[in-house]
Amino acid sequence: MTRIYFNDVVTRDGFQIEPNFIPTEDKVRLIDAMSQCGFAKIEVTSFTSPKAIPMLRDAEEVMGKIHRVPGVEYTVLVPNLRGAERALESRADEFNLVMSTSETHNLANLRMTREKSFAGLAEVIKYVDGKTPINISLSTAFGCPMEGDVPQEVVEQFCQRFADLGVRGLTICDTTGMANPAQVTKMSESLQKKFPQLQLTMHFHNTRGMGLANVLAAVQSGIVRFDGSLGGLGGCPYAPGASGNISSEDAIHMLDAMGYDTGMNIPKLLDLARELPQIVGHSVPGQVAKAGRSCDLHPAPEYIHDLK
Amino acid sequence: MTRIYFNDVVTRDGFQIEPNFIPTEDKVRLIDAMSQCGFAKIEVTSFTSPKAIPMLRDAEEVMGKIHRVPGVEYTVLVPNLRGAERALESRADEFNLVMSTSETHNLANLRMTREKSFAGLAEVIKYVDGKTPINISLSTAFGCPMEGDVPQEVVEQFCQRFADLGVRGLTICDTTGMANPAQVTKMSESLQKKFPQLQLTMHFHNTRGMGLANVLAAVQSGIVRFDGSLGGLGGCPYAPGASGNISSEDAIHMLDAMGYDTGMNIPKLLDLARELPQIVGHSVPGQVAKAGRSCDLHPAPEYIHDLK
Repeated sequence: MTRIYFNDVVTRDGFQIEPNFIPTEDKVRLIDAMSQCGFAKIEVTSFTSPKAIPMLRDAEEVMGKIHRVPGVEYTVLVPNLRGAERALESRADEFNLVMSTSETHNLANLRMTREKSFAGLAEVIKYVDGKTPINISLSTAFGCPMEGDVPQEVVEQFCQRFADLGVRGLTICDTTGMANPAQVTKMSESLQKKFPQLQLTMHFHNTRGMGLANVLAAVQSGIVRFDGSLGGLGGCPYAPGASGNISSEDAIHMLDAMGYDTGMNIPKLLDLARELPQIVGHSVPGQVAKAGRSCDLHPAPEYIHDLK
Repeated sequence: MTRIYFNDVVTRDGFQIEPNFIPTEDKVRLIDAMSQCGFAKIEVTSFTSPKAIPMLRDAEEVMGKIHRVPGVEYTVLVPNLRGAERALESRADEFNLVMSTSETHNLANLRMTREKSFAGLAEVIKYVDGKTPINISLSTAFGCPMEGDVPQEVVEQFCQRFADLGVRGLTICDTTGMANPAQVTKMSESLQKKFPQLQLTMHFHNTRGMGLANVLAAVQSGIVRFDGSLGGLGGCPYAPGASGNISSEDAIHMLDAMGYDTGMNIPKLLDLARELPQIVGHSVPGQVAKAGRSCDLHPAPEYIHDLK
């Protein structure tokens, strides 16, 4: 049975665009509960400027208060050198560095050119100097909402440049839900051939309903690592109408039903997903938490006994 | 380029569980607009008892008023002999006969045993006597929300019995969204091998987010015919929490992006999907109508020009 590894990004990528501050205690409680569900990795927070993302201004506090479970990796987003210092102090298990493969999206989102981003991240990698494993998340790898197509060659060039700097893993991000399964198959096969030494993770959004179809295409191609967000929270401010990351529990439910070993306690995971609307104050897109697992049975109506 | 054929069921399967009557004129206008979008087939209405489903009490009127476009098949649901008489008078292009492969679901939904249903439908087929092609929709073929697993052998036995009666096509229905892609692959491959002479259609629901992943699995296995519902309307009263049929436009958008020939005018289809909330008086699950196609571009923010 193939083992699949999930990284839940709800408290970072998901919460980041929520309008109302989520109390530190709620974040810690949620992460501690997720740690009990079997996630391979949890993206806890971001060591970005508190002014840029006030929601994550409590990064140090959250990292200090969570109860770390052996076997779960606690990763954090690190945007720059200052973030790397803070992240090192917080003893995160992995640093996640982000840039876009589309020039326009990088300018719009990170307010600098791709080359400036690359140089900055290379500096961070040098500074960390192997003390903590580095993962690189490459945004808009399946298309940019402003530029359109991002050639696979461009994505692979950035993969190569980061591989040359000694990173442990690459996350290929469909930031605004533009990927289709044919494209995912092509990308997954090529990257695994070219970077067999790296941990390759796929990060899909369900913006246009293709999220789980893309997971299927990736897993058929041999990919075993996925990002997901509890409840399907998240999205991208530069993609109007976007409906967010794939729901971790919906993707895990599908792969489990197909016979993959997700390592997850699914009933616990669904209980947790069902608490999420109360934490964020609105309903969330994930569907299995609403409909129940496909193996959950319902009572038959009484009247059928008179029909037999 | 593989040609894919879509049958939209929104005005029958979708409208059937809407709480408020949709005026005949709205139904006719919607069907006429769908006829212009490139659907291979449209399930217009059901010749069931007006008392059982008041929403479709205007079946004759709708069939009489729609403007039939050459190349589009207009199919109708026929539950029994009385329905077949009415459907023959309406000059439908195809009769769609329905029963469940799960005994409990058939009792709950059709209020008779499967054997009684089969006998009744066999009578209808005999009565129609080749004047109109017959399609059989087999419900709960991927699982029953009350019984659980429905063995593939049971589904195939019903397929065989109907094939022996000379039907033209079979629709294999995941009535409450329990199917997973591994199961779909197995079913699709087996049925195509056993019934190469029949038109095989897959009918998926997106109850647990797996709808488009199941479409992908089916199309990879060689299936080229799908049911869908504009906006993703529909569902099943016996599956609490269920979120409805797959959205025709979301499935078509995915297959088109992958390079399949869907024969559809997608901008027209999305315009139509965007009118649906007004017709039914509430929002609908389809996502591409909200987010736009993956090839739709958005303007970059002004500030990026100062950053270069």
